[in-house]
Amino acid sequence: MILVVKSGGEAALPEWREHFAAFAPGLECRWWDDPALDPASVDFALVWDPEPGRLARMPRLRAIFGSGAGVDLIAADPDLPRHVPLVRCVPPEATQRMAEFVAWAVLSLNRDARRMAIAQARRAWDYFEAPFAAAEQTVGIMGLGAMGRRAAEVLRAIGVPVIGWSRTRKALAGVECFAGPDELTAFLARSQVLVCLLPATPETTGIIAAPLLARLPRGAGLVQAGRGAHQVLPDILAALDSGQLSGAVLDVFEPEPLPPDSPAWAHPRVIVTPHVGSLPSRRERARYVADCIARLGRGERLPNLYDPERGY
Amino acid sequence: MILVVKSGGEAALPEWREHFAAFAPGLECRWWDDPALDPASVDFALVWDPEPGRLARMPRLRAIFGSGAGVDLIAADPDLPRHVPLVRCVPPEATQRMAEFVAWAVLSLNRDARRMAIAQARRAWDYFEAPFAAAEQTVGIMGLGAMGRRAAEVLRAIGVPVIGWSRTRKALAGVECFAGPDELTAFLARSQVLVCLLPATPETTGIIAAPLLARLPRGAGLVQAGRGAHQVLPDILAALDSGQLSGAVLDVFEPEPLPPDSPAWAHPRVIVTPHVGSLPSRRERARYVADCIARLGRGERLPNLYDPERGY
Repeated sequence: MILVVKSGGEAALPEWREHFAAFAPGLECRWWDDPALDPASVDFALVWDPEPGRLARMPRLRAIFGSGAGVDLIAADPDLPRHVPLVRCVPPEATQRMAEFVAWAVLSLNRDARRMAIAQARRAWDYFEAPFAAAEQTVGIMGLGAMGRRAAEVLRAIGVPVIGWSRTRKALAGVECFAGPDELTAFLARSQVLVCLLPATPETTGIIAAPLLARLPRGAGLVQAGRGAHQVLPDILAALDSGQLSGAVLDVFEPEPLPPDSPAWAHPRVIVTPHVGSLPSRRERARYVADCIARLGRGERLPNLYDPERGY
Repeated sequence: MILVVKSGGEAALPEWREHFAAFAPGLECRWWDDPALDPASVDFALVWDPEPGRLARMPRLRAIFGSGAGVDLIAADPDLPRHVPLVRCVPPEATQRMAEFVAWAVLSLNRDARRMAIAQARRAWDYFEAPFAAAEQTVGIMGLGAMGRRAAEVLRAIGVPVIGWSRTRKALAGVECFAGPDELTAFLARSQVLVCLLPATPETTGIIAAPLLARLPRGAGLVQAGRGAHQVLPDILAALDSGQLSGAVLDVFEPEPLPPDSPAWAHPRVIVTPHVGSLPSRRERARYVADCIARLGRGERLPNLYDPERGY
């Protein structure tokens, strides 16, 4: 059986091979652009951003694995073979890592880690007091999938009050849950820090823009760990400049990499991180894909399937 | 009744007055260097670093309140009036804030926030993967007072394995506790991230130095949120350069402010923060001091008394 890989660049192939040798012995790992590879021989694909049309030329394909939790860059392929299951990569480690990232980002906003980093670069002992403990400010999480739920658990354990919003109503212990467009304004009004963990769908494109930001309490914080397509970056920067937002941690952009001339880099109230929110190790992703391939072999249903109707 | 204040500079006096007016009506708040203040009229002192000998000239003094959890700069006064109770300032907010700081620091080391801050300053999209989730690395906390215990709780809630070490043995749910010099080596050997929350005493002076650092696992992280006197900064920097330490968050120094020519500022593996670990708001400290004064009025025992035998 052959798995073709396009994730992490060709330099990552030896590591993928090492992990798959451990978790799926007998599976042959080939690089996406290997000129000696016959597309007709490929059984599985593990990809992040395949060139449109390429997957359609692999007639034996039995499953496509996204190498991250979001598969929007794969689903965007107009020639994507729709009869082949498309699997989102959500090993347990991915939810834990995202929850850790969100906790780090919320605490970084509370302590103004950006101000401390700027002071360190200037060799300046810039003592200042955080006006509130993190546990005194309500965090609102948009998107209550596996990652949003674990992030809520971790924040609550730290002592932080958490509320949540999602498309359809969810139930989480200790978390007041809002749902749908009708309850968005009430949710936003109480979110002193807004965390975006939404999937990228047509409905969520451009959602983090001036009209939404204006409904947050004045001086709110923003953690953007969803997708770059969710945000209108100039609106976020304008809200920071007006004081409507007090700070932001932005992990996702459109396009990525964020261009060197983006005003986000030097903004004194923005922490830029290079899309590192949830990414689990290659080891854990290989374990997850190997487990899915074994399930297919046993005729079992695959987890975390992309649903074109829902859009994620 | 008169409370003399030396904490946060004279500019902070109006804020202290506002909070004490709310929590202890009738208490008169005066500045430490107020020339019109008669030392013989002072009932209480709230201080961080009083000049030696000054407190001894206040014969009516009924209690001295440290403005932080550590009172080593007060206890260092050779003329400190030993018959007056010296109270460490440990309101509940201080333990929560320290726990939040420790969680932030541990997550910052796990994600290499220093590398991300350097990349942001260069406008560089420096994508890299954290090799482990924070929950995969054991954190060892030295010092299991109120702050160490709350930090352990918060880290465990995030999913991080925690072990602890203290002078006398403590019992904490879910935390393997080591005690005394005999068990220090075993504790250090398992601490993939070492967190120092020790009090400043003669026994702990200079403890974070080459011999201790060499007993950590190779590539360990260090969070120093105790006191500057605990550490030998050149040894920490040497351990970072050799790879024995992979990163450090240093919040305390000797002297403070850290001088502009310190090599810590520009070190690519050091996050410098300006002694902000636990400091609760002035509001919560005023509430705590007012509560202590009310207890004295009722003839009750004061909490968190400095013990000269123990040294904290």
